[in-house]
Formats: sequence, structure tokens, C-alpha cells
Amino acid sequence: MKDAAGDSRAVLRERFKRARAFSERLCEPLETEDYGLQTVVEASPPKWHLAHVSWFYETFLLRPFLPAYSVFHPRFEHLFNSYYEQTGAGFWPRQERGLLSRPTVAEVYDYRHHVDAAMLRLIEGCDVADWPRVAMRLQIGLNHEQQHQELLVTDIKRHFAHNPLRPAYLKDLPQSPLADPAPLRWEPLEGGLVRLGLDSSGPDAAFGFDNERPRHRVFLEPFAVADRPVTNGEYLEFVQDGGYQNPALWLSDGWAEVQTRRWRCPLYWEEVDGAWQLMTLSGMRPLNPAEPVCHLSYYEADAFATWAGKRLPTEAEWEHAADAVEIAGNFVDDGWLHPRPAPDGAGLKQLFGDVWEWTGSAYLPYPGYRAPAGALGEYNGKFMCNQMVLRGGSCATSLDHIRPTYRNFFYPVERWQFKGFRLAETLK
Amino acid sequence: MKDAAGDSRAVLRERFKRARAFSERLCEPLETEDYGLQTVVEASPPKWHLAHVSWFYETFLLRPFLPAYSVFHPRFEHLFNSYYEQTGAGFWPRQERGLLSRPTVAEVYDYRHHVDAAMLRLIEGCDVADWPRVAMRLQIGLNHEQQHQELLVTDIKRHFAHNPLRPAYLKDLPQSPLADPAPLRWEPLEGGLVRLGLDSSGPDAAFGFDNERPRHRVFLEPFAVADRPVTNGEYLEFVQDGGYQNPALWLSDGWAEVQTRRWRCPLYWEEVDGAWQLMTLSGMRPLNPAEPVCHLSYYEADAFATWAGKRLPTEAEWEHAADAVEIAGNFVDDGWLHPRPAPDGAGLKQLFGDVWEWTGSAYLPYPGYRAPAGALGEYNGKFMCNQMVLRGGSCATSLDHIRPTYRNFFYPVERWQFKGFRLAETLK
Amino acid sequence: MKDAAGDSRAVLRERFKRARAFSERLCEPLETEDYGLQTVVEASPPKWHLAHVSWFYETFLLRPFLPAYSVFHPRFEHLFNSYYEQTGAGFWPRQERGLLSRPTVAEVYDYRHHVDAAMLRLIEGCDVADWPRVAMRLQIGLNHEQQHQELLVTDIKRHFAHNPLRPAYLKDLPQSPLADPAPLRWEPLEGGLVRLGLDSSGPDAAFGFDNERPRHRVFLEPFAVADRPVTNGEYLEFVQDGGYQNPALWLSDGWAEVQTRRWRCPLYWEEVDGAWQLMTLSGMRPLNPAEPVCHLSYYEADAFATWAGKRLPTEAEWEHAADAVEIAGNFVDDGWLHPRPAPDGAGLKQLFGDVWEWTGSAYLPYPGYRAPAGALGEYNGKFMCNQMVLRGGSCATSLDHIRPTYRNFFYPVERWQFKGFRLAETLK
Amino acid sequence: MKDAAGDSRAVLRERFKRARAFSERLCEPLETEDYGLQTVVEASPPKWHLAHVSWFYETFLLRPFLPAYSVFHPRFEHLFNSYYEQTGAGFWPRQERGLLSRPTVAEVYDYRHHVDAAMLRLIEGCDVADWPRVAMRLQIGLNHEQQHQELLVTDIKRHFAHNPLRPAYLKDLPQSPLADPAPLRWEPLEGGLVRLGLDSSGPDAAFGFDNERPRHRVFLEPFAVADRPVTNGEYLEFVQDGGYQNPALWLSDGWAEVQTRRWRCPLYWEEVDGAWQLMTLSGMRPLNPAEPVCHLSYYEADAFATWAGKRLPTEAEWEHAADAVEIAGNFVDDGWLHPRPAPDGAGLKQLFGDVWEWTGSAYLPYPGYRAPAGALGEYNGKFMCNQMVLRGGSCATSLDHIRPTYRNFFYPVERWQFKGFRLAETLK
Repeated sequence: MKDAAGDSRAVLRERFKRARAFSERLCEPLETEDYGLQTVVEASPPKWHLAHVSWFYETFLLRPFLPAYSVFHPRFEHLFNSYYEQTGAGFWPRQERGLLSRPTVAEVYDYRHHVDAAMLRLIEGCDVADWPRVAMRLQIGLNHEQQHQELLVTDIKRHFAHNPLRPAYLKDLPQSPLADPAPLRWEPLEGGLVRLGLDSSGPDAAFGFDNERPRHRVFLEPFAVADRPVTNGEYLEFVQDGGYQNPALWLSDGWAEVQTRRWRCPLYWEEVDGAWQLMTLSGMRPLNPAEPVCHLSYYEADAFATWAGKRLPTEAEWEHAADAVEIAGNFVDDGWLHPRPAPDGAGLKQLFGDVWEWTGSAYLPYPGYRAPAGALGEYNGKFMCNQMVLRGGSCATSLDHIRPTYRNFFYPVERWQFKGFRLAETLK
Repeated sequence: MKDAAGDSRAVLRERFKRARAFSERLCEPLETEDYGLQTVVEASPPKWHLAHVSWFYETFLLRPFLPAYSVFHPRFEHLFNSYYEQTGAGFWPRQERGLLSRPTVAEVYDYRHHVDAAMLRLIEGCDVADWPRVAMRLQIGLNHEQQHQELLVTDIKRHFAHNPLRPAYLKDLPQSPLADPAPLRWEPLEGGLVRLGLDSSGPDAAFGFDNERPRHRVFLEPFAVADRPVTNGEYLEFVQDGGYQNPALWLSDGWAEVQTRRWRCPLYWEEVDGAWQLMTLSGMRPLNPAEPVCHLSYYEADAFATWAGKRLPTEAEWEHAADAVEIAGNFVDDGWLHPRPAPDGAGLKQLFGDVWEWTGSAYLPYPGYRAPAGALGEYNGKFMCNQMVLRGGSCATSLDHIRPTYRNFFYPVERWQFKGFRLAETLK
Repeated sequence: MKDAAGDSRAVLRERFKRARAFSERLCEPLETEDYGLQTVVEASPPKWHLAHVSWFYETFLLRPFLPAYSVFHPRFEHLFNSYYEQTGAGFWPRQERGLLSRPTVAEVYDYRHHVDAAMLRLIEGCDVADWPRVAMRLQIGLNHEQQHQELLVTDIKRHFAHNPLRPAYLKDLPQSPLADPAPLRWEPLEGGLVRLGLDSSGPDAAFGFDNERPRHRVFLEPFAVADRPVTNGEYLEFVQDGGYQNPALWLSDGWAEVQTRRWRCPLYWEEVDGAWQLMTLSGMRPLNPAEPVCHLSYYEADAFATWAGKRLPTEAEWEHAADAVEIAGNFVDDGWLHPRPAPDGAGLKQLFGDVWEWTGSAYLPYPGYRAPAGALGEYNGKFMCNQMVLRGGSCATSLDHIRPTYRNFFYPVERWQFKGFRLAETLK
Repeated sequence: MKDAAGDSRAVLRERFKRARAFSERLCEPLETEDYGLQTVVEASPPKWHLAHVSWFYETFLLRPFLPAYSVFHPRFEHLFNSYYEQTGAGFWPRQERGLLSRPTVAEVYDYRHHVDAAMLRLIEGCDVADWPRVAMRLQIGLNHEQQHQELLVTDIKRHFAHNPLRPAYLKDLPQSPLADPAPLRWEPLEGGLVRLGLDSSGPDAAFGFDNERPRHRVFLEPFAVADRPVTNGEYLEFVQDGGYQNPALWLSDGWAEVQTRRWRCPLYWEEVDGAWQLMTLSGMRPLNPAEPVCHLSYYEADAFATWAGKRLPTEAEWEHAADAVEIAGNFVDDGWLHPRPAPDGAGLKQLFGDVWEWTGSAYLPYPGYRAPAGALGEYNGKFMCNQMVLRGGSCATSLDHIRPTYRNFFYPVERWQFKGFRLAETLK
């Protein structure tokens, strides 16, 4: 006779195995040499991701809950901690993650398999009394691995784009036919006093991160959002209209970045012999005007909106608009690894998948938010300053990772994720 | 027979003369050598402030509205522009404002008097048709000069504190007797759907900056705020409890700054022979436990709140709490140039004056906000990213400059203003 | 019937094959992951060295002299150029050599073998008219490859020492027994008008670099040199006497580096549980007092000499002292890859091999020096500023690479080569 | 009856008074605001120079030798020490010398007069037993003050050139008529075994710095030197021939600086409306082709020489050539404060005065050199690394400060002194 926990264990065991396998599948196209690359500080080596997600299980599940667990290597606690100050082991400097040829790739896979075996023992054998806490941490661990799967995709793209040979991660990725963007339509919403965020956690609560909680009320004035993200074709008009040369369109900090970093177009765009191309995970391709524009900073999204006489939606507006929309779209599961043109038809499109959408909201705690105690409390709470919220997931996100309440966050200057944006406007 | 504009002209003329005189009065205690100092990039030389506020009138009033106005010096358009990209003249790099011995102090005063005379001609003689725009820009110019008067005070303090001789700006400033802080009390507020910001501008509208508009609705959950700001005595407990050594209390970016900048206490605190002192505008003084703690970054305010199990109020909470409170307190007009202990009595105290209060809100546009067109539109709008809102004015602010809706904003790392904070908590 | 050129071709062909094979042999102990490492800007990835030396033959021999030579890859001209401005292809930034996972290690070996085959065709088949120039450039190419073999050893050591796991390049390298240093003896020399440098080049001239020429006269006052380099044991006394805390011993620029870089001992020394160890190519080992001290900057060598009341020899003194000494010692050929204690016996010891010896001479042109024309002229001449001369070769140098006239040069701050020093003094 | 010491005291007292007065005379044209400027780290504020030279007498003469001397201010020991590590008081950071508005200019003059009075008491009243040491240190102090007089001139020029108003230090300085340079002629010298440097010090020895000693022998091959320095007209040809765009002409470190600092011409040259001008101490002037080119780095001098197929003389060649030449020329005493065209006539011209001449010699100790003990030993010895030797003095040097053996030294990148160069070549 099975009890609920038994069911849950079987389900989580399968999800664990699937998640673990998917990380490794994403690395299959890599050469051994690719695993160690860190071309910019914000993008980690694939090898580091593979090890770090394993460190996470080791630190938050195996050490505290699996009796007689023997760590794979005593220094990995230090080498593969990302930023948790409260574990006591410190962490190897982020900017030096690419400077370690050892452990080798093979050793990191051994580490993974050591952790896998122990995790399966824990899932199957842990005390009933421990199970609720184990299950909750395992949920976090799985979602954490999914986040790093997205980073694997975006970081590999970043590293390969740095190489003047512009190598392809996968030569034969599918490709959307070149087309002009469909005309943009506006979707009006009434606003009013709406609810935002996830219901407070409990035994039956759906999984969600602490930063999505608590559910709370927000008042919205009437507004409209565009039915789809801004496209390459539209953004090219901004570029050709001198958008990157006109300080009047830019936030002050954004204009400083444009000048310091000599930005003239989104990340991965290149003008080659007078024609625009962009770097993709299958190498260089011609710019497709119908695809959502991608790999933009918040500053570029904001400057485009100013140029267009519009603005970005707030995260409350975005979530309110997304509330009634089915979670479907172009996710990592689909294997395109690149945004696709908006589908035909009425209604709001591409809220989920394709590109993360910059909102005009700073990443701050919801009213009543409290970070959990201990090192796991560092997961989301300590980053609630200087970053902006993005919503909806991208073509590098797993479908079962995303929710309407999901809050992603990055510094305004960062561009290497699949980030685009959707326009909004206030209605009178 | 006088018309409304006539009245208004007389009033504004007097306010203009008063504002101009006050800037110069603030500089009276300076030696000639002090006028050119720029010890840190964010704090400008007094000479630069005196010239820049004059440049503002010249650029936005005299050149466009006073026929046959002759500029004092053709290069001042470039030298004393702060950051307006759209004036066409560019600007001397901010970090090099202290590298100009010429124009001399005497020449800058000549420049001021040249502008003063022209401004009086403009105020008295300008066309009735132009007057509304002139009057509105003059209001901005006067408020702008008041903002720089506050900066004169805080920048002089910053520069003098950098000198190992710790010179006094004014030796004989009044001083509060050393005392322990009064016990802190909590003021509960119901929240609900409240209104925030200034009514939209019009001929009868009170003066306010564009960033305070439009007035709009915000929903607040029940909350409580402390009756007074956190004091030196309370903050010292945090310091002595190892607050600056415990990463668990800090935002991630804050902890990075603590380590990089080796922060161990607020700006201007010094431990001298085992006793805490602080640098003031009258030189070094013993730390007074009853005074509001001051010269803190947002990170330090937030870390203290975390340590205390509380949080900072949002700007909406702050403004809602301040709505019914009389605008009174310790302002620059009082001549203390230093925060004073909270007065006795019930109710919310020191919302206005003493110290600017960090809120937990990012500086972002209100719903429906549009920056004005042209260079003047750069005044507030282009800074709406990466900064946090502060409220209520300080002991370096002019009383008639402040309003409950007034939004000040600084980067979280900046400490040289008179900045403190007040605790808040969410009620269930 | 063979002519002289025929002989010479056979000799050079064998030397070419030997040099090429030795580079690859040095890389045999590496994992694929190790090939791409660049932990500090001055130490290149092994993969880069393997490719760059091939680029050298391709650029200076195959392209100009081998008819119908087809380059292996059109971009390698750019990727593997080190610093030759005059080739026209530019060069990938030195500090980013570790950021290229492609070409892979296997592709770089393919590149090598492509070049090898072409070079053998050139050596065997080139016109008799071309042969003298080909032979001379081939000599340079072979010596160039030997220089990079030394860099392979020192760069691998640098990269491995950066890894907190302190991996061994070769676990089973031989090791000298721990011992105290033999007493230091002084060798007096009379000096006078001596000759320095290589005889001017000609068909029969021995190979040498342009910077060793022309042979010229120098006047030397009487001096004495130590019979062997300073040892770890002696240097440890300096460390324990507070040498790194006493500015009076240091050159001004050196003292600035001590403070900025927080130097407290030579590179690779570590105090572990109160005992000194050092990182070697076979991992961590206890400090051996009898071995020559190694991996020092010029500043440290000079500070020790000041502390000891002595000085470093000039390069003229060194060369004059070395003139009559047999070229023998501990070279890379011996396979220790680490300095060894001085042998017993009279006379000057260890002038050749073990450690490069810092001299007190700046790297400047000899009287009458002219850099050759064209890109090859950049080999040595353009570095004649800001660097100091080192003499004698090290345990990572090939025996047949070194001569008494050989001038090596590095910036005074650099420590990652096998660099030590010998004391000298002026005699009255 | 006067003895020798009495004579010597009177002479030195007059020289002291003259030197002290000349420093102040150089500052007469300054505004109070100019005294505090430090626009680049290497150029100190005039106020600092005035105080530092006084600190020198206080530290090395008044404290040790004048009984009951009372220091002017206890913190000045720290504030006005330049770089002497062994005095024990540390020193205010060099890059922050411009950040001190206090002490004021008036207070610095008071400090000077306090030191002046005490020094006169010391000169007149010190023990006969102390006098030799006092006299020797006083000689150093006077020469030290002369060096800072030159720096006053060059630093003021640097600071004023940074100001976009390009103010004049003295409006009415004399000016040479525009002219083409006289043809360059070559002076051959035989070389051989020559003597270099000053005779070893003793009671009757002429004053000289430790770095000019000991006198020693050097062997020179036959060479020729140009009869005058390179002129603006000649250097302009190099500029117009693309000299700053051609890496083949440059030392590697020099080419890096050209690119990093975007050098396109000497310091102070500006192309204004198509015509070359240069900043002088009397403001902007048209470029005079006949004047020696000035304000060049070593790299620029070396690149020009390479372009011209020549080289720079070594310091030994320079000193040997200068041995028989009268010390006369355009010095600060003449009041031009700018180089003048070469006079007519045969023989070597302008070896002394006009511009310091870069030599091809690194600044290193002479054979047998020993730095004096104690803090004064830091004066010259600790800088013997990474700098190049310049010879002959400039239009900002005092005539009675210079000798044929005088060794000045700067980093190759530095340009703000009056530095030019003379060509040389090796003869067969």
C-alpha cells in the first residue's frame, strides 16, 4: 500500500532523474575544451554549472539528511559554491571560474554520478519525518538545476560568440523563414485592484520561489499592452534612426554604458558587408525582421520605448495581463534555442517562452516578504536591489519551470540572456 | 493697478534675491582655497555650485527670454553645464570640476552678479505673453538653487572631512547635549487605497517637480512606522554586535561594498582612543546617542533593519504617513547643520528635516509620468533607474523647499548627504 | 655527391624534427582541459604555444618560400600571431588567449602536422638560391620554438599553481635531498677592457640573436662574483629578518609592488602549518635550503643584495666571468624541471642552467646594434626598454639553446620564470 | 678674523636667502586658487612645493641640528613629506596633494618664514663641529629647492594647460620670431677610454649628487652627435609622415602608450583650425619650427630617431661630448621659460639649458655607487630602475644648478618636463 509520500517520492525521483539527464544532454554537443570557458565574468564555464548544481544537492540535502554521506572531494565545497556566505566554506572567486582545468570534465561527471546515486538513496530511504523538508528542498534543487540549464545555453552562446571563428553549438538547429513582422496590435486592460503573486506556501501549495510570495493586492490604472514583443525589424528602425547616437532617448546610466561600451546595436548583431547578421547557437545567420529582438539591456528596451512614445509594462501589469493566458510557447523543450516570429491570431502572444520580457519594475520584496532563514535564504532575497524584473521565460527555459508569477531579475546592463521586451501604455 | 502677474513678479523677484543671497551666505565662512575642492567625484567644488546655478538661469531663462542678453563668458556654457546633453555645448567632465583654478572665485562672483542683474531685468520687463513660462522656469531655477545650497553644505562637509586636519566650517555651531535616545514607539496605519503624488500641474497648481506627478492611487496593506528615525545609540549597538562582519544581514551588492570599501561604521564616524567621534561642520565631536544616525548608505539602512527584524517603509507608506503631519523640523534655516535628537511628545516626529529617510522604493516613474520635452526634461526623468527614493528633507534643506510628495533619490551606495532612516513593519 | 648545403639541410631537418617532437613531448602529461588555460596574462595556454610556433614557420618560411603552400586555416594568421605588427594580420589580444576553446587541441595538432609536412618539403626542396635565407630563418624558428618550450614549462607551472588543488604536472619528478647550502665563496676578477657579445654574423658565424651583436668593448673595474646563486636557505633568512617589511632595502618601484601585490615571499612559496613549502611541477614540496632560490622579481633580488651589503653583477661582468666556463648544468634535457643544489668543488658554478640570473643591467642595444628590417626585426629590438637582462639559462632551457652571450630579458616585476640571482661586489 | 667656515656660512646664508626668495618670486603671478591645483598625479600643487622644500630643511637640518627648534605644525611632518619612508611619519598620498585646501596659502607662507628664521639661526649659530654636516645637508637642501623651482614651472604649465581657458602664467613673456631651423650638422668624436662622473666627495669637492659618483672609466666606440637638438620643424615632418601611426618605428611599450593615450603629437601641441599651436607659460602660441621640440616622452624621441635612421646618445657619450663645452644657455635665470632656437655658429650648441635631453641610457648606479645611509639615502638611489637619464638642464633649470655630470631621470612615458633630444650615430 502506497501513501502520499510514496507517490511523491516516485514522482520526484523521476523528475530528479530527468533534470539530471537534461543537463548532461545539453552538454553533449560540447568539445572537452568548451567545458572550461569563461569569456566574461557573468557567464560561467559549462563544467562549473554541472558541478555547482551537484554541490547544491550535496550541501542542502545530502550533508544534512543522508546519514554517512561521504563527500566526493573535500575542496568541492569551496570550489563549486556560487555565493552562499553562510555555508562557511567560502567560494572560489566568480571571475576565476574559467581558470581551473582540474577537476577535469570526466571528474566532474564522476562527481555528478556520485551525487546522483546518493540522491536516489536519499529520496527512497529518507525518514518520513524528514521527507517534507527533503521534498521541499529537492523541489528547490530541481528548479535550481533548471535555472542553470538555461544558463548553460546562454553562457555557451556567450562564449562561442566571443570566438572570432564563431563556432556553432549545434549546426543543424531549425530556422524560421525570413519575414516581415506582423503589424502590432494593442490589448487594453481595465486594471483596478488586482492580486499579484503566489498564495502562501503550505503542504498543498504549488511550488514557487519565496520572491513570488506573499500574494497581495496592487492597484492598476487602465493600460494597454502590445500583443507581441518588439521585433528585430522594428528595432532595426530605431538603430537606423540614430537611436544609439541620441542621448535624449536614454536613461542617464544607460547613455553612460552606450558610450563606455560603444554599443551600436543589440548583443550578437553584426553588420557584415552591409547586411545585418546575428550570432546564434547554430552560428551566424541573417537577421530575421519577424523574430523578437533579443539580447538587449534594460537601457536599450527603455530607450526604444521612449523613441516609440511608449513605455515598458510594470511587472504587476504584465502578471495581470498574463493571468488568463495559457502557458505555452517556444521553450527549451522545443529545441529551437532561438526566438521565433509571433504566431498569427488574436490575443496576447508570446508572453511565455521566446524571450524574457524586461518590465519597468525594480526587483524588490513584495509586501510582507521575508527571506527564509539560513543559507538557502540567500537564494533570492539578498539580490533585491539594483536589478529589474523580467517575466515569462525564454526559448532557453524549461516549460515546466515557468509560471505567471515567476520573477526573474538581472542588472539593467546585462544582455547575454534571451531578453526582449513588449511595449505598454497608460490609458486615460 | 496691479494684476496677478504683477504680484507674482514681485514675489518671485524677492524670492530670487533671497535665494541668490543665501547661496553666497553659505560660502562666507570659506577661505578662497576651499572654493575649488573636489575630494570625491560626487561632491563638487563650492565654486562650481555657485557658477552652475547661475548657468541654469542663463541657459533656461536669459538666453531664450531676455532680448540682447550677452553671456558673461562664452566657455561657461560648457564649463558649468552639469549633465544636460541637449543644450549642445557638452559639459566639462564631472570628475574634473576640481581641476580648474580659473575662473577665480572673484570671477565667479562677478558672473553671479552679471546674471543677477539680467534676471532682475527679465523678471521685471518680460512680456506678459512670456511670463507664465518664465515664471514656471524661474520656480524651477529657484528650487534648483536650493538643491545646490544643500549640496554646498554636504559637499563642504565631505571635502573638509577628507583633510587630516579636520577643519571646521563654522567653529561655533550649536550642539545638542549628549543623551540617550528616547524609547522608540510604533504608529500603526490602516493603509487601503490611498492617493500619492501631486495634482497635475496647471496655472493654480502648487510648485512641484515633474517626478512627483501625476497624482495616482496605490493600495497599501496595514503597516506601522516608527515614531522617529533610528539613532546613533541604536546604530552603535548594530556596529558592536558585528553588523559589519555578518554577511547574512546584507544585500549582496551591499556586502560587496562593505568589503571593497572596508566600511566599518557610517561615514564620518571615527574611533579615537577607544571613543566614537564624528566629523561635523564644526569639526570633530563626540557621538551623541540621541541624535538620528546619519550619512548612511541604503545598504547600511537595510542591513540594520534586517538585524532589527524590521524593514524600511516604501515611499508610498512614508508619504501616506506624512500626509497629515505639519511640515516643520530642523532645516537649514535653523542653522544647526546637524541632526538633533527627537523632540518629546506623541505622534510621528522628524518626518521633515534632520535627515533624509531612505525608503525601500526604487526611484521609478509614477503611472502616467512623462518627462517634459527638451533639455529641462533631463532634470529628473533620466535618473529613473538604479537609485532609491529618500523623503522628508534634512538639516541642510530649506524649509520652503520641502513637501510630503517630494522625492529625492540617490544611488544606494552614496553616503555623503544627511541620510538616515526610519523602521517600518507590515501588520497582519 | 653532397655539397655543404646538402649537409646543412640534413642537419637542420633532424634538428627541426627533434624540436617539433620535443614540444609535443612536453605536453604529453597534460589533460585536454589544461591546454587552454591562461591564469595570468603573461603566461599563455599550452595550446597557444603549440600553434604559435607553427604560425612562425608558416609566416616567415612557408608563405614566402614554399611555392603553392596552402595555409591550414585563414584565421590562424590572426589568432596565433603574438605581437608582430608588420605582418598586417593583427593579433588576437594577448590577455584573451585563454578564451578560445576552438580550434580544439586535436585541431592544433593537425595544424602542427600540416606545417611539419610542408616544412620538410621546404627544407628538402627549396632552391639553392633561397637556401641561405631559409636556413637562417629556420635557425631562428628552431630557437624560437625552444624559447616557447621553456615557456610551456613555466606557464604550465604558473597555471597549475593557481589551482587550489595544486595538481602535479608530473608526479614522479626527481627530487634533491634536503640539505643546508654549501658556504658561499667569492671569485675575484680583474676586469679591464673586455670584449662582449657575438662576432658579427656571416656565413660561418655561429647562430645568435641580433641582440647579442655586435661584439664590442667594455671597460670593467675589478670585481668579484659569488661562486653560486643565492639559495633558499639564505633567502629565508632575509624573509625572517623582515626583509619584506623594510622599505629601506627596496627600490622605490619594488616597494610599491610589495605593497600592491602583498608580496611576503617568492612566488610559489607557501607557509603551511608553520613550515615553508613550494609549488613545483610535481606538486607541493618542502623548501630545500640548498637549492637556488627561484621565481623572484628583480626587485626582490636587488633588495636581498642590499640587505646583504652586495649588489647584482652587470651583464658585462657576468659574461666576462662566464667566458671561460664550460656550458653545462641542469637543463630541461635533464628532466628535473627544478633547480638543484650547487655541486661541490672550486670555481664558478651553476652559471648555466638551474636558474636565470638577474643582472643589474637594463636591456638596451649594444653599441652599433641595428634591428633587422621587416617583421622579424620586431623579435628583439622593440623590447629594449623597461626590462632587465638575465643570463645563463635555467632548468627549463635546452642545453643547446644557451651561450655565454645569450641575453634574456624580463620586466623587473615578473617572477614566473625560473629566475634567481648571484651576488657580486666591486673591488677596490 | 674669519675662518673658512665663517666665509662659507656667509656664502651659504646668501645662497639660502636667494633660493628661498626665488621660489616665492616664481609664485608671484599665481592667483590664490592656482596654488592648490593637481591636475595629474605627477605634477604637484605649487603650495605643496613651497611647503615640501621647507619640510626638507625642517626634517634634515632643524630637527637634528637646531637645539630647541619648535616645529611649525605637528602634522606637516606627514603632509609635506614626499616619499621618505625612513622618517617614520609616513606621507600623505601623492595623488591627493591637490585635495587639501588647508593649510591655506597664507599659512604655508607663514610656515616658510618660520623655517627661514630658524635656518638663519642655524647657519649663523651652529657648532663648528656640526658645521661640515650642516653645510653638506644645506647644499643638498638648496639644490633640492632648485629642483622644486623647476617643478614649480613645469607643474604650473601642466595645470594651466589642463584648463580649457588656457590661461597664461605670465602674459608678456619674450617670444622668438618664427623661423625655419638651421641645417643640422654632425660633430664626430673619437671615444676611447674616457672618464665619467664626479670625483669622490671630500672637503674640497664640488657639490654633486651621490648618483654622479664615483668617477669611473667607460669605453666608447667612435660616434657623432648632432650640433643641436631636434626642432619643432623636423618633428612636424615626422608627425606628417605618419610617425604616430606606424608601429614599426616604436618600442613595444611606446606603441602601447601611443594607443592607450591616443598620442598624436607632443604634449601641448594642438591643431587649431588647421594650424599647429602650442601651449606655453604665456598661453597659446603658433608653433615655431626653429625651436627645439619639447615635452616628449622617451618613446617619441626614440621613434623619431628610428624614423631618421639615427639613435639617441648614451649618457656617457653625452657627458664626454659636453666635457669641453662651456655651461651657458637658456636657463630659468633668463626668464624666457621656453626653449629658444639654436644660436648661429660652429660647435655643439644648446647642450646646456633649453631642453633636457633624453639619452639612450637607463638610470642605474655607477660602478662602485653606494647610497648614503638613512632617509637622505632615499634621495636618488631608490629610483635606479625603470627610468631613463636626461642631461643638460632646461629653460626651467637654474644655471648654477647644472653640471656636465648632472643626471636627471624620468620614466620613459613622462612628458611634462621641458624634455627634448639630440640625435647621435655610431661611426665605423
